Formats: sequence, structure tokens, C-alpha cells
Amino acid sequence: MQLHGIQCPAKLSNATALLSTGEGLGSVPKRVDPEERRQAIAEAVYQVIGERGWDAVTLRDVASTAGISMGQVQHYFTTKTDMLMFALSHMRDRVLARLERRLAGLPRPLSQRDQVRAAISVMLPLDEPGRQEAAVNIAFFSAATATPGYAHLLRDGYARQVASATAQFTAAAAEGRLNEGVDPGHEAAALYYLIQGLIGPVLIGQLSPDQALDLLDHQLGRIFRS
Amino acid sequence: MQLHGIQCPAKLSNATALLSTGEGLGSVPKRVDPEERRQAIAEAVYQVIGERGWDAVTLRDVASTAGISMGQVQHYFTTKTDMLMFALSHMRDRVLARLERRLAGLPRPLSQRDQVRAAISVMLPLDEPGRQEAAVNIAFFSAATATPGYAHLLRDGYARQVASATAQFTAAAAEGRLNEGVDPGHEAAALYYLIQGLIGPVLIGQLSPDQALDLLDHQLGRIFRS
Repeated sequence: MQLHGIQCPAKLSNATALLSTGEGLGSVPKRVDPEERRQAIAEAVYQVIGERGWDAVTLRDVASTAGISMGQVQHYFTTKTDMLMFALSHMRDRVLARLERRLAGLPRPLSQRDQVRAAISVMLPLDEPGRQEAAVNIAFFSAATATPGYAHLLRDGYARQVASATAQFTAAAAEGRLNEGVDPGHEAAALYYLIQGLIGPVLIGQLSPDQALDLLDHQLGRIFRS
Repeated sequence: MQLHGIQCPAKLSNATALLSTGEGLGSVPKRVDPEERRQAIAEAVYQVIGERGWDAVTLRDVASTAGISMGQVQHYFTTKTDMLMFALSHMRDRVLARLERRLAGLPRPLSQRDQVRAAISVMLPLDEPGRQEAAVNIAFFSAATATPGYAHLLRDGYARQVASATAQFTAAAAEGRLNEGVDPGHEAAALYYLIQGLIGPVLIGQLSPDQALDLLDHQLGRIFRS
């Protein structure tokens, strides 16, 4: 079974592949969406890093966590680095999806301050998915000091997020929603990097989630008029 | 030669040990201060992490970088984790020593703002020693998600540093050196964690050292009256 995935022709890797559901030899083969399967493998990577750290990430452990064979993992990702690069790039989609669910759950009308607070605080390890993402983020940062490919992806993610925060602050300033004398560009970047600096301390229990949110809310109260 | 250190009696590990200078068989044995030797091993750990990342840290690589035998490393540290724990705890002394040299080089009189700026910015990867310390710090954070001992040491370091920043801000407030309405406790913590959040982005080239210092100076200008 484990060899099956390895022997899969490479041309299947970008198309819908037929894989056994694993329910026994007599089961009907199930059509698997390769993108869904890759995302499931990325989720297994997050779980392994979140529970046992970066050092524990092996193709074998990820396969076992995802409940598939090593061969199947190797069918989608040629190397461990390929797998990790995909996991890192998929992280952004996962965080954005979580932010959308969070925004949808907030009472209307949503003020710009509420929106900024949600977009910024979604990066903090306030719940289990957030803790897993924070652990993964820190692990990739550590790896990025020695692996330029990770650094490139991280820089790209940071640049987009700071640009998005700056656009929100600039729009709020134009609408007169920021306090007098507040520089939207400097404050958007400072708030973004403040949150980045709170991730690690919350993750290791130096700060409670409430203490981190209190620091965030103090800054929002200083920056926003309403 | 490599076995020599392994066979050293353990009772020597807390006393001054006689070790060869490595200058040849005919050289005079040199008295080695065990604390200095441990610090030299910690420096080799920083160098390996800074250049090749956490994954590259092995007793063998650290020994080779320190220019000593694996046996000598094992004489001072029973396990790799012992060695890394010592390296992490020694980091604080190294940063403080660098801060003292930096403060000594600044023109007098030193304002409280100058002192805060020096104490805060010494944590940023602005030069090669700072880059090495930042890489080591991030690596330990990543490891701390799976190793409670590292998390304990990191929490201890953070608590001391935030307490020190808060004391500086409170003293400055009492002397009327902070702008009106500035909450010293909240702002000391926020500035400290902002710097923590800038370390990674400067390290991976997302922000230049000057951009990071500009964000820091904008906040200092907002907080300090002079």
C-alpha cells in the first residue's frame, strides 16, 4: 500500500486522482480533489508542529497524522521542503477564512475599529487554531534564517498584511475616525508589529490572552476616536 | 584526543580544569576557567544557529566551531539540551554587556529617552552580533513550543525586561518627562513587545534596520516629552 502512491504516474499530480478511501479492498474508490488533499497534508503539518515542534516534522509523521500513507504524501510533495513551503503558503488562506468567520459573528454595525481589532487579533494565539498557527509561524521564522525560500514567502505575507493595515488606517483617517495627530502609516505598522511581538509571549505563557488584548485595546483607544 | 574529554572525571566540571591549549604535544598545559569555556561553547552555539539554523546544532558542529573536541563539549554539558539551556541563559549576559558598551559610547549627558532607546534597540538585529542573537532568540522560541524548559527561561527573561522597561517609564513619568496622558505601564510594555515584533521582520529582510528604528523613534517621540 505504501508503495502505491510512489508508483503513481506524476501526470496525475495536477489532476483529480483516484485513491482508495482506505475502507478495505472492497470499497468503492473515492474521487479525491488534489488541492483538498494537499490542504489536508498542510493541516497535518500544522498539527505536528503545534504539538511536537518543528523537529518532529517528518514525511512519516505527517502521513500518519493525516491518516494517509507516506507514498500518498510523496505523491503530492516531492520533498519535505516542498511540503513545508505549501503549508506556509496555505496558512494565509486559513487565517483569512478564520477572520471571515470571526467578522461574520460580530454584531452589526461594524465600526472600523472593530474591523481593525478583528483583523489584528486573529493573529494572536487566543484559541487552539490560533495557537497552532502561531507555533507554525514562529517555526517558519526560525527556519527562514537558514532557508531563503521560507524568508521570501514570509516577507511576501508581511508586506501584504502591513499594506492592508495601512490602507484601513488611512481610510479611517480620511473619515475623521482617528485621534488628532495620529500618523496612520506609522501607527498601522507599529500596531501590526506589536501584535507580531505578542504572539511568542502569549504562546509560551508569558502573557495571558487577556493581557495581550488589553495592550492591543489600549493602543486602539489611543489611535481611534470611535 | 576526542575520547579524552569523555573520560574526564565529572568532579572536574565545576572546578578549574587543566586542558591542552591544542598548540601541539610539547605545549605547556593552560589553566582554563570552566565558566569561560562554557561561554565559548555558548558562543559557538550562537554562531551555528546564526549561520545554519537550529537544525544544524549538533555537539559535533558546536565542538568544531568552538575549536575543541566533542569530548570537551561533553565534559561541560551532559546533553545537547543542557548545552542549549546554558546558551540561552548566557544570552542575557551577552546582550547586557553589549548594551553597556553601547551606553558608554553615547554622548553625555544621557537623557532618559536616550537610555530607553539604547536598551530597547539593542534587541534589534542592527549589526552582526544583534543578528546572531535575534536568530538564536527566534530558534529558542520555536523550540519552546515543544520544550517547557526553554519556555521557562524565556518567560523569566521577558518578565525581567518588561519590568525594567516599566520602571524606566514610571521614573520618567514621575519626573515629568512623558507627554500628557501617556500611561507608563501600558506604553513600556507595548514598546517592548513592538521591538520583539520587529526582530523577525528585520532578520528576514522585510524591514531594513532604518525602517525599524524609524518606527521605534516615532513611538518614542509620541511618548517622551524630551
